[in-house]
Amino acid sequence: MKDRRQLLKGVAAAPLAFPMLARARSEQTVKWRLASSYPKSLDTIFGISDRMAKKIALATDNEFQITVFGGGELVPALGVMDAVQNAGVEAGHTASVYYSGKDKTFALDTGVPYGMTPRQHLGWQYRGGGIEAFRPLFKKFNIINFPGGSTGVQMGGWFRKEVKSLADLQGIKMRIPGISGDVAARLGIVPQNIPGGETYAALERGVIDAVKWVGPYDDEKLGFNKVAKFYYFPGWWDCTGQLAFYVNLQAWEKLPKDFQTIFEMAAAEGTMDMLAAYDSKNTLALKRLVGSGTQLRQFPREVLQAGYKEAFAFYREEAARNAEFARVFGEWKKYREQVLVWHSLNEATFESSLYALSRQ
Amino acid sequence: MKDRRQLLKGVAAAPLAFPMLARARSEQTVKWRLASSYPKSLDTIFGISDRMAKKIALATDNEFQITVFGGGELVPALGVMDAVQNAGVEAGHTASVYYSGKDKTFALDTGVPYGMTPRQHLGWQYRGGGIEAFRPLFKKFNIINFPGGSTGVQMGGWFRKEVKSLADLQGIKMRIPGISGDVAARLGIVPQNIPGGETYAALERGVIDAVKWVGPYDDEKLGFNKVAKFYYFPGWWDCTGQLAFYVNLQAWEKLPKDFQTIFEMAAAEGTMDMLAAYDSKNTLALKRLVGSGTQLRQFPREVLQAGYKEAFAFYREEAARNAEFARVFGEWKKYREQVLVWHSLNEATFESSLYALSRQ
Repeated sequence: MKDRRQLLKGVAAAPLAFPMLARARSEQTVKWRLASSYPKSLDTIFGISDRMAKKIALATDNEFQITVFGGGELVPALGVMDAVQNAGVEAGHTASVYYSGKDKTFALDTGVPYGMTPRQHLGWQYRGGGIEAFRPLFKKFNIINFPGGSTGVQMGGWFRKEVKSLADLQGIKMRIPGISGDVAARLGIVPQNIPGGETYAALERGVIDAVKWVGPYDDEKLGFNKVAKFYYFPGWWDCTGQLAFYVNLQAWEKLPKDFQTIFEMAAAEGTMDMLAAYDSKNTLALKRLVGSGTQLRQFPREVLQAGYKEAFAFYREEAARNAEFARVFGEWKKYREQVLVWHSLNEATFESSLYALSRQ
Repeated sequence: MKDRRQLLKGVAAAPLAFPMLARARSEQTVKWRLASSYPKSLDTIFGISDRMAKKIALATDNEFQITVFGGGELVPALGVMDAVQNAGVEAGHTASVYYSGKDKTFALDTGVPYGMTPRQHLGWQYRGGGIEAFRPLFKKFNIINFPGGSTGVQMGGWFRKEVKSLADLQGIKMRIPGISGDVAARLGIVPQNIPGGETYAALERGVIDAVKWVGPYDDEKLGFNKVAKFYYFPGWWDCTGQLAFYVNLQAWEKLPKDFQTIFEMAAAEGTMDMLAAYDSKNTLALKRLVGSGTQLRQFPREVLQAGYKEAFAFYREEAARNAEFARVFGEWKKYREQVLVWHSLNEATFESSLYALSRQ
C-alpha cells in the first residue's frame, strides 16, 4: 500500500541496518465498524457482513479489521444510511429501498416490481453501468455504494385469506415497504411499513392481513407460516432483492488502495455467495413449509397484469417529478430492454424446456 | 501472513533499532505463471485471467504477481491440465470438460447437457458441496480447483442447413466436444473435436456442417455468421459453460494464507463478473448478428426431448462404468432435483410473466 511505500522511502533514507524492512504493523491496522440492517438470527442476509469481515481479515493478515453489528445494536435497523453518512460507522449493510423516503431513486438499486431478474440486475450493476449510475446520488449522502448480496426472486408473501382475483386485494393491510408498497397501493392494497421484528405479532393479531418478507428460508425463521396459511408466488414486487454495502466517503478515501481492492472483491464475492446460499437454503425450507401445512398459491393472472401496468405507470410518474429518478431509470430501462431480448430468447427457452422435461 | 509473523518473531529477538519493522518486501514477492486455454482475442473468456491478475496485484500491493499467457503461448490450449499437474505453470484457466478423455467426471464441473442453469450450477458449486465434490478427483491430478467464470446458457450452434426434425441431424458433422458430443452422437450427429482456431475454416470448406462454440459475442468474433446461416437456440447441450481455475497443489500449499484468500476471492469475483460481462455483450452482439442476416431458429421440440432422454441415459451408463462419475453425479443429481423444484415454482413463473408482459 501507499503508506508502506512512503514509510519505506523515509526508512531507506535513514542509516538503518535493514533498509528494506518496512512499516510497523501496529501503525497500519485499520479498524472499521459496520452496521447491518438485519438481525444476526437471519444468518444469510446478515451473514454476508460477518463473512466479509472474516475474509477481509484473512486477506490482510488481520490488518483491516471490521467489527459487524446486527440491526439495532449500534444504530436503528433503518438508520444505517444516516449512520454511514455522518460517520457514526465507517460502513453499513442494508437495502437502498429503505431510504426511498429520502429519494425514490434508491429503490432502483434494490430492484423494483417487474424490473429485472437477480442475474440481469447484477449484470446491469457490474457491467452495464449500474453501480456508476448510482454513485452521484450516493455521493450527495457522503456515501460510496457497492452491491451487497441478492436474495433471488422473493416470494409474493403470506396471506391469511386466499387471493382469487384482483378484487380480493382491495383494502387488505399488507406489510410491504418502499416502491413495492407504492405499486401495491395502486392495486388497492393498504401498504404498511412495520419493522421486521414486529411483523409476526401484527399478522398474528390480525392488525395486518398479509406480509411480504423474503423467501422460504427467512420467512420460516420468522414463523409466518404459523399465522398465515397461503404463501403466494411469484414475488413480482420484489423480483431482485439486491442488498448494498455503504461506505462513508472519507473513510473510503483514507483506505489504502490494496484494502479498497480487497473490500470491493469481498463485497462481490459475498454477493455471489449470498445468492448461492439462498438458492440452497430456500429449496429445503420450502419443503419443510409445505410439509407443515403451508398452501402454495400462484397469483391470478389479472393480479400480475395489473401489477406490471401499475408499476410502469408509477415509474413514469416518478420520473416526471424527480430528475434523479428519471436519470437512473432511463439507464436502467435501456439495459433492461436489451437484456430481456437476449434472455427471453435463449435462457428462458432453455429453462422452460428444462423444467418441462424434468417433470416427465 | 505467517511468514511475516515468523520473521517478526526472529526480528523481535534480535537487537534491532526497529523491532516492530517486518519483512523485506522483495523476499515476499510471489510470482506465478497462469496458462489460459483461450486466445487473448476472446476478451471475455480470456479476460477473467487478466482481470484476476490485476486485482490480485492491486490487493497485495504487487507482492503476488501472476503473468497470464493466452492459449498456445506457453503450453497447448488443451494442455493446461497437464501443465498445472506437472508444475510447468503454477495455475491455469480452462474448462474441465476438455479433460473428459482422462475422466468423464470432469465434464460435470463445466456443466452437462440438460444439467442446471448457470446460477443453479454456481449455487451447487459454492453452497451445495460442488467444489468439494471435485476436490478428491483433482487431487489425483495434483491440482486444486476453483470455479472460474460462466458463459451463461450457450447458443445451440451454427448450422449450414435448417434443422426441422430429428431426422435432419442424422449424419451431420458438428464440432461439439466432450460429453455434449457423446450425447449429440446418440442423436445421430457425428461429433468432431476440432481446435477452436481451425473451426472457422472447417465450416467454411464444408468439412463440417455445424459448430457449437459459445454465444453471440464470441461466435461473432470467430465469424461463424459468415459461413453458416442458421443460429439455433437454446443451447441445451452446454447450458452452463462454467470455466475453472486450476492451481498446482504444491504451489497452493506454499502460498501464504492471505494470498490464498485473495486468490479465492478474485476467482469468485471474476466468476460473477464474467457472467455479467457475457449478459451485457451477448445482447448487443445478437442484435448485430441478426442485422447482418443471421437467421435465428429454435430447435424442434423432438430434438429437445430426445436430447434430454439421451443425456440422462448416457449419465446412467457412465455412472455404471465409472465409480468417480457415479459419486459426483449422485451429489449433482440430488442438488439439481431440489433446486429445480424451487426455481420452477418461483423464479420461472416470475420470469415467464416478465417476458410475456414486457412484450405486450
